[in-house]
Amino acid sequence: MTIKIGILGYGNLGRGVEAAVHQNADMKLVGIFTRRDPVSLHTATQGVAVRSADDLLSGDRLDIDVLVICAGSATDLPEMTPRYARRYNVVDSFDTHAHIPDHFSAVDAVAGEAGTLALISAGWDPGLFSLNRLFGNAFIPEGKDYTFWGRGVSQGHSDAVRRIEGVADARQYTVPVESALEEVRAGKNPELITRQKHTREVYVVAEEGADRDAITEEITTMPNYFDEYDTTVHFISQEEMDRDHSQLPHGGFVLRSGKMASGAGSVIEYSLKLDSNPDFTSSVLLAYARAVARMSAEGQKGCRTVFDVAPSYLSPHDNGYLRSHYL
Amino acid sequence: MTIKIGILGYGNLGRGVEAAVHQNADMKLVGIFTRRDPVSLHTATQGVAVRSADDLLSGDRLDIDVLVICAGSATDLPEMTPRYARRYNVVDSFDTHAHIPDHFSAVDAVAGEAGTLALISAGWDPGLFSLNRLFGNAFIPEGKDYTFWGRGVSQGHSDAVRRIEGVADARQYTVPVESALEEVRAGKNPELITRQKHTREVYVVAEEGADRDAITEEITTMPNYFDEYDTTVHFISQEEMDRDHSQLPHGGFVLRSGKMASGAGSVIEYSLKLDSNPDFTSSVLLAYARAVARMSAEGQKGCRTVFDVAPSYLSPHDNGYLRSHYL
Repeated sequence: MTIKIGILGYGNLGRGVEAAVHQNADMKLVGIFTRRDPVSLHTATQGVAVRSADDLLSGDRLDIDVLVICAGSATDLPEMTPRYARRYNVVDSFDTHAHIPDHFSAVDAVAGEAGTLALISAGWDPGLFSLNRLFGNAFIPEGKDYTFWGRGVSQGHSDAVRRIEGVADARQYTVPVESALEEVRAGKNPELITRQKHTREVYVVAEEGADRDAITEEITTMPNYFDEYDTTVHFISQEEMDRDHSQLPHGGFVLRSGKMASGAGSVIEYSLKLDSNPDFTSSVLLAYARAVARMSAEGQKGCRTVFDVAPSYLSPHDNGYLRSHYL
Repeated sequence: MTIKIGILGYGNLGRGVEAAVHQNADMKLVGIFTRRDPVSLHTATQGVAVRSADDLLSGDRLDIDVLVICAGSATDLPEMTPRYARRYNVVDSFDTHAHIPDHFSAVDAVAGEAGTLALISAGWDPGLFSLNRLFGNAFIPEGKDYTFWGRGVSQGHSDAVRRIEGVADARQYTVPVESALEEVRAGKNPELITRQKHTREVYVVAEEGADRDAITEEITTMPNYFDEYDTTVHFISQEEMDRDHSQLPHGGFVLRSGKMASGAGSVIEYSLKLDSNPDFTSSVLLAYARAVARMSAEGQKGCRTVFDVAPSYLSPHDNGYLRSHYL
């Protein structure tokens, strides 16, 4: 079975999915869909159709097994995922944790009625980190959860700094506090406040004549984004920014620590170290697209999350191979 | 729904499952079954029925949702799991990797015909480590796999040393080589031979007058068990053995390291640090017993492994709670 993949949205994530299709021999990219003028897109893949997103909904339903929707969670996905789930199996990476239940309900209603299968919030957090929070709680019923992020670029925090007057460019790194991580790993189950878990490093290109002290003050006191953290601000040149900070690395750690009924301690740790956040997220999206294609072929419909997917659906190998080689 | 758990076999693992039931509010222990004389068992739980294993198969089928079979993989489980799957949903921790396909087939044939549901090879390896090998390959299609075990007690290696002439008692620890782990974590994808991944530490109580040099020589040159490793042998007193080496700690690391289509590196690491190998394994067995009870209630039958279980089945919480709290 070759899985026919469509990509809707052609930013960092869409380009990542496009590239990742070539690492999955059981998949084929059948179209890239955009809300921009299709002629304006310069895609990496030769010979793949680039079409208007409108073509997905007008005329005949296109021959696509799973449409991977690569768009922002703030305003795009809440509107786009239900819209396209009316006609296609879809996967998205909706990552606004607080709004997941609403998004799930909206998508489930549409997909359930249309007979399509949708999977929302795939990626690494939400996604793989979520899985490990669930697993940790199931296997260590009495314990504590810890999630640390970084070292990695937070695009939301970088954007917030860029909006400050006098800032020409900015990049924000979230950094886990190593000593806190070590305490958790040692099974000490510490109570950690925000400031004790992460620090923030900001690299700023200031406009000529800008007041650097004022910029630093505005960053470090910014409510929600920085005021509860120890933040370091570094002023650099645009050349340094382009040379040293053009990538989007990220990662982090999910830990569950607790005691078995006997009192014996157990610590589970899951971590990711990613040179490129969007490239890895793209690869995860495709593994879940594979699961969606198979579960849909079995007749499943409605909305799912990573919690609902048996691991075997994620692998291109059959169950006999998995038992022989991975179990 | 309260899940009625039966335990078959009352060694380290059976005792661990018995204790772990009390950490799972949705479960109830309804019986401990033994192939020994039931009167000889001194159980930790007050008021739970202790019965002969024969009672499971003679007379009426007992009211048990899932029977957790706590026995050895070498000779017991290949015979016991199919036998009891004729009447009960079962979970086991069969861990002889090379024989898993045969064990699966035997159990699947019986359970499929009887209409029961069986899950084999639950635990941490096989089990959680297997899951992470599958996940790693699905999310990083082009990369390398690494599994390191320890620091922990290998009971098979300890037993092998105890069989040497002049050895009164022995405990063997498998120890991962930290520098190799660091190379893997750094994304260097090293080729590692056996000796480069683990060392072995052996603690020996020698009988009086025994030839210690001969014992050391026999250990370090023992085929399969020690000859491919750098092994250190320490002679200690029985008092030291009892004081310092009475626990069964274990754990290890599963890593997947590779490159995304763009060339960006990704490393996934999963690790366990367990004060008690059997206690943690017991807790994992119960989480999979929960899944078996639910999947059986849905009408599933036959044999399954950890690869076939959607994560949500492992948690006592409903799907809405999981989406709100863990996703």
